[in-house]
Amino acid sequence: MLYDTIWKDARLATMAGATAASADVGAIEHGVIAAKDGMIAYAGPAAEAPSLDAKRVVDCEGRWITPGLIDCHTHLIHGGNRAAEFEMRLDGATYEDIARAGGGIVSTMRATRAASEDELVADALPRLDALIAEGATTVEVKSGYGLGRDSEIRMLRAARRLGEERAVSIATTFLGAHALPPEFASDADGYIALLCDEVLPEIAALGLADAVDAFCEGIGFSVSQTERMFDAAVRHGLPVKLHAEQLSNLHGAALAARHGALSADHLEYLDEAGIAAMAASGTVATLLPGAYYFVRETKLPPIAALRTAGVPIALATDCNPGTSPLTSLLLTMNMGATLFRLTVAECLAGVTRNAARALGLANRGTLEAGKRCDLAIWNVERPAELVYRMGFNPLHARIWSGQ
Amino acid sequence: MLYDTIWKDARLATMAGATAASADVGAIEHGVIAAKDGMIAYAGPAAEAPSLDAKRVVDCEGRWITPGLIDCHTHLIHGGNRAAEFEMRLDGATYEDIARAGGGIVSTMRATRAASEDELVADALPRLDALIAEGATTVEVKSGYGLGRDSEIRMLRAARRLGEERAVSIATTFLGAHALPPEFASDADGYIALLCDEVLPEIAALGLADAVDAFCEGIGFSVSQTERMFDAAVRHGLPVKLHAEQLSNLHGAALAARHGALSADHLEYLDEAGIAAMAASGTVATLLPGAYYFVRETKLPPIAALRTAGVPIALATDCNPGTSPLTSLLLTMNMGATLFRLTVAECLAGVTRNAARALGLANRGTLEAGKRCDLAIWNVERPAELVYRMGFNPLHARIWSGQ
Ligand SMILES: [Zn+2]
Ligand SMILES: [Zn+2]
Repeated sequence: MLYDTIWKDARLATMAGATAASADVGAIEHGVIAAKDGMIAYAGPAAEAPSLDAKRVVDCEGRWITPGLIDCHTHLIHGGNRAAEFEMRLDGATYEDIARAGGGIVSTMRATRAASEDELVADALPRLDALIAEGATTVEVKSGYGLGRDSEIRMLRAARRLGEERAVSIATTFLGAHALPPEFASDADGYIALLCDEVLPEIAALGLADAVDAFCEGIGFSVSQTERMFDAAVRHGLPVKLHAEQLSNLHGAALAARHGALSADHLEYLDEAGIAAMAASGTVATLLPGAYYFVRETKLPPIAALRTAGVPIALATDCNPGTSPLTSLLLTMNMGATLFRLTVAECLAGVTRNAARALGLANRGTLEAGKRCDLAIWNVERPAELVYRMGFNPLHARIWSGQ
Repeated sequence: MLYDTIWKDARLATMAGATAASADVGAIEHGVIAAKDGMIAYAGPAAEAPSLDAKRVVDCEGRWITPGLIDCHTHLIHGGNRAAEFEMRLDGATYEDIARAGGGIVSTMRATRAASEDELVADALPRLDALIAEGATTVEVKSGYGLGRDSEIRMLRAARRLGEERAVSIATTFLGAHALPPEFASDADGYIALLCDEVLPEIAALGLADAVDAFCEGIGFSVSQTERMFDAAVRHGLPVKLHAEQLSNLHGAALAARHGALSADHLEYLDEAGIAAMAASGTVATLLPGAYYFVRETKLPPIAALRTAGVPIALATDCNPGTSPLTSLLLTMNMGATLFRLTVAECLAGVTRNAARALGLANRGTLEAGKRCDLAIWNVERPAELVYRMGFNPLHARIWSGQ
């Protein structure tokens, strides 16, 4: 076969063939990847490659190749930022002071509502570019700062636009149930009804969402409200995921697992029953160490128990203006290792194989024949360097869809 | 006067005019900077500028300008890295396991000794470039992994070379007393004698060091050994600084203050007497949040007491392969705020005005007439964004020596 491109003399971290809990990057020392029509046709030892004929041959000079990185949980689209609030808090302001000054999630809602689709796109592109510069090839983007029909739709359109503006795959998630908008201040059930009966049907009809998410928390939505969102998602054929057990244990992860959720995210307060439910349903645990760090959380997610139960662990930036203004998957991995004591292989699986699974995207996340040819090629001597360094980008080249 | 360059329509964070403990970036909303012969001739309100004639006028379109950033504590020159050790530790290895596998500082010493001057320079340049890409214009570089005459001199020559390879100011520090080399395993006093009587005199004669540093700690050198290094430094007319109170309280900061040290660095275990001594001598407290984070230290440096005593606080990366593989001053500021609760103004002063003071460089660190024209121009709406974000680089342009 004549391939489109062959990357030769590479070392591969295939991230393939390992079990969920295994500490193995699937290393191949003398490796080759061959691509045809944007897909991987061969990834493995050079000695076993079926052919080396290609229109283009790239000599990797011994560099490591990983799957293109995947950020499976972001709020990349939003208006404004919360740097002023951050500054106020360091100067000693209380949460009440900040609320009185118009801060908090409502300030992001207002700025997002006030922005046009073009403005939302323009504002998000530098953040997306920062992720791309470190090898990201797939990025999930949630709605959830519009908190109304038009503004939520505008956020999702802006998210889709990101995928047209850059060579990157965008997975969109409808997170209307992120916070209660002021219009429904005393009527959370009414807001959920609006989302389920009017907003989600329209978004589904427009094909604007790849999944549905909610914030199940004392300061968010109750278990029964979350369940109504999930039921509506199922009616529209959309998979679900959940912000669960971030600040307290409402047993959201178990609820998500019962609905076959792709992932439950945050999980600092997850208990054994939730872990067992996630293991049984194959739900990914998406951990967000940037938010843990930024809000100075001290309760760790139950890493050892997740590992023992064989729950796949993903890592994501949670990029958002309030609790995780983070746009680096490399730093996310370092935080996963430093703060959560994940191994190097777990961190890498968290932003490749398991992140793909958290998005329900079976066609990426490992270096294997039949997967998309999304690659990150690194100037490192060993994959551990990608996790070890802080604020250093050793990306040599990034390939999206074979290019 | 005809200036070389004028930067107009800028917002200035001058970092000037504030007291050490003041939370003030010295903001000027409608500002102008004029440069002549590499120095700032005017920095202030546009309305009060003496003239606007220049060979070149740069329209900053409302962007913020800060002094060029200064990293006042790095071990940028070193052979190898310790990613394998990092990985082993995450996989559960003990310090003994790692020592048996040839890890620890001795592994960096071996790799550094084995490297040529050219190799040391080539290896350090990507790290320096990462700092420069975020607006650094002055970087301190220590020796201390050679731990012998030739290898320490080679490290300092390599450090000086960095300043020829890039448009950046390099300040060099002789840190022969960083660790005990195997050749002197049972004779720390003999090693100190070698450093004081042979190595330092040669380095001073060659003009290779701008300051002398030591590691005063149970696992480093004693107070009396440190004092011998300081006395030797004074004999050669070199200012001193000290790695002090990182793991325990040996009263190193007070010792440093008694010798008029430019800075005492780390300081997690600093006590009230040490703070008072530093305040009296004007010694800068250089805090290293990257190392605090990376080694998962839990004892915080005494921030409030330093602030109350009016001790100037600097922040630095401590870039080193063992305990802080960090090459981002922006992330260092975020860690200073998030982990140490420094204010935005304190973080910015820490990498500008106070970092200059920690290096004894009175000619930089603020935007004032008579200072070097080292600038960082940022795509931000307020200086707080430089501290708030994680893994995002909003640098628009960097000016070193007026260019
Ligand atoms: Zn989130
Ligand atoms: Zn140091």
